[in-house]
Amino acid sequence: MKKKGLAIVISGPSGAGKGTICKELVKRNKNISISVSATTRKPRKNEVEGKNYYFYSEEEFNEKIKENDFLEYAKVYGNYYGTPKSKVIDEIENGKDVILEIDIQGALQIKESYPKGVFIFVMPPSMEELRNRITSRGTDSREVILERMECAYHELNYAFKYDYVIINDDLDEAVKIVDSILIAENHRAIRKKDIIEKIKEE
Amino acid sequence: MKKKGLAIVISGPSGAGKGTICKELVKRNKNISISVSATTRKPRKNEVEGKNYYFYSEEEFNEKIKENDFLEYAKVYGNYYGTPKSKVIDEIENGKDVILEIDIQGALQIKESYPKGVFIFVMPPSMEELRNRITSRGTDSREVILERMECAYHELNYAFKYDYVIINDDLDEAVKIVDSILIAENHRAIRKKDIIEKIKEE
Repeated sequence: MKKKGLAIVISGPSGAGKGTICKELVKRNKNISISVSATTRKPRKNEVEGKNYYFYSEEEFNEKIKENDFLEYAKVYGNYYGTPKSKVIDEIENGKDVILEIDIQGALQIKESYPKGVFIFVMPPSMEELRNRITSRGTDSREVILERMECAYHELNYAFKYDYVIINDDLDEAVKIVDSILIAENHRAIRKKDIIEKIKEE
Repeated sequence: MKKKGLAIVISGPSGAGKGTICKELVKRNKNISISVSATTRKPRKNEVEGKNYYFYSEEEFNEKIKENDFLEYAKVYGNYYGTPKSKVIDEIENGKDVILEIDIQGALQIKESYPKGVFIFVMPPSMEELRNRITSRGTDSREVILERMECAYHELNYAFKYDYVIINDDLDEAVKIVDSILIAENHRAIRKKDIIEKIKEE
């Protein structure tokens, strides 16, 4: 009886630190992989097919939409972006946990297309700290910062659509919490049906 | 904003090892306490009020039933046994996680009276191993062993009524899984309402 992996969807406002958490998780845990998105935008220099993105033509992308092969997708500035379902399912069937770092709209789509996923929302410890993190990047104008702050504030309302909420105060602590969530989710009664039946059959 | 504790209900067939797991959890984690049952049976030598049991008269026990102060209760061989709700709630309000090691009938009652609890079912790794554990006690007759085995087999059907199922193959591993479940449950979105509202209000 082969153990199946989990699909872990991680979202949160810009500046909450979800990207850093995901990178750290993969570094520490060999059984976790990060989902690679598909896009119709042209590859940039140094971008590698299957590593940074799967690069599809618009025709291919539309074909995959028709085949229902996206867990979620969206058109942004004229280009399509999406999460190929078959690639994620392949990993899960092979026992790997797959992380999908995805925006809130995408996460809500996945809740429809793959409700078995584990949905984690990462939050900043305070709006003050969020502002510090966004401004410390030093790349954004005052307007952009304000826009990001407003967007983050609005996005906090979606936290309750998720299974778990992590306040990202300390990276190490946050990664440990995600690890614990994975262990706990792997022991949910609904995922143990096969093994219980097996023990009974002996 | 004070963090509230969790009520963790642990059940499983005789021989699954739930008692050992509970003892080990309390030993390792200062924030966990074990719930003390109330009973109308007479105290035995060395039994201490409030440690082994709360010893109630039948009148007191009936009064508490009327006041709806039991998370669960049952009459066994003419004596009442029950879990006093107010004692558990006090601990939880003080931020302590409370473990309730309880039989399946009791656990199902708690699911009704306190659905916010976390329900964990502990299983033996195999029926073979269960038989070994039950026989190795050396105290039971062949009939009693057979009865226990049949009862355990029947009880496995209730595993799906629980949130989590732990196959107790290795004590250390099982305790770590319960620890992870506690961390995960403490980060459930439904338990983070207050803190999210607070961050937004800043």
